[in-house]
Amino acid sequence: MVASDEEGVRNANAAFYVAFEARDVHQMATVWEHSSRVFCIHPGWPALIGWDNVLPSWYGLFTNSERLQFLIVNEVVSLAGDCAWVVCEENLIDQGPEAGLYAINHFICVEDGRWLMVGHVSAPIPERAVGF
Amino acid sequence: MVASDEEGVRNANAAFYVAFEARDVHQMATVWEHSSRVFCIHPGWPALIGWDNVLPSWYGLFTNSERLQFLIVNEVVSLAGDCAWVVCEENLIDQGPEAGLYAINHFICVEDGRWLMVGHVSAPIPERAVGF
Repeated sequence: MVASDEEGVRNANAAFYVAFEARDVHQMATVWEHSSRVFCIHPGWPALIGWDNVLPSWYGLFTNSERLQFLIVNEVVSLAGDCAWVVCEENLIDQGPEAGLYAINHFICVEDGRWLMVGHVSAPIPERAVGF
Repeated sequence: MVASDEEGVRNANAAFYVAFEARDVHQMATVWEHSSRVFCIHPGWPALIGWDNVLPSWYGLFTNSERLQFLIVNEVVSLAGDCAWVVCEENLIDQGPEAGLYAINHFICVEDGRWLMVGHVSAPIPERAVGF
């Protein structure tokens, strides 16, 4: 059975959070397209463009930050040809109910039918953020 | 002469900021795709999904906020088939050098060759933000 596009995108989005929780930079690297067009904005970070800038940010996050465990809810998948994006809420389980982020995750479908991440942006959910 | 895809995306991105500066909700409506898949995160706002939610946010911004004048710099355009995204910096001219935002603007190419906005996310540039 071939997975539908929406299922493929949901699986790719899930794989991103599995790699994030595992703090595994190699696993994270398999989720992303390795190209100059990828982008990433972590909360409070500058905008990073290109895999050469995005990869070290994951290495830095996994080396320096505490372990994060996500509960992903309200996942909305949108498809546009070979592109797709997911808007979802990242709840950080160990950090209390106010520690929620919105994420927008972008994917493209590559030749073998896999969906690769080309963009990740997260920002605090304002009604929960402290001092936002 | 037919505009290249990159030129078309740059023009669409510029049209977005023209509509934003003009505070013209009808002009803004011509920039966007009117569909359930569009998304928008204004700084400090919840994530809005679908044109029925995105349109009122522009109406609200244009009705209630002060006039904004943008200087857009470091615009990087990426293409992926019929999708494109622009990462840029929004400098708010009247609000001092610290009032800068990153923006990620997403577009899709529709049948007549026009590029329509399907996503806009902006977030404070951290090294400039006060109290971020």
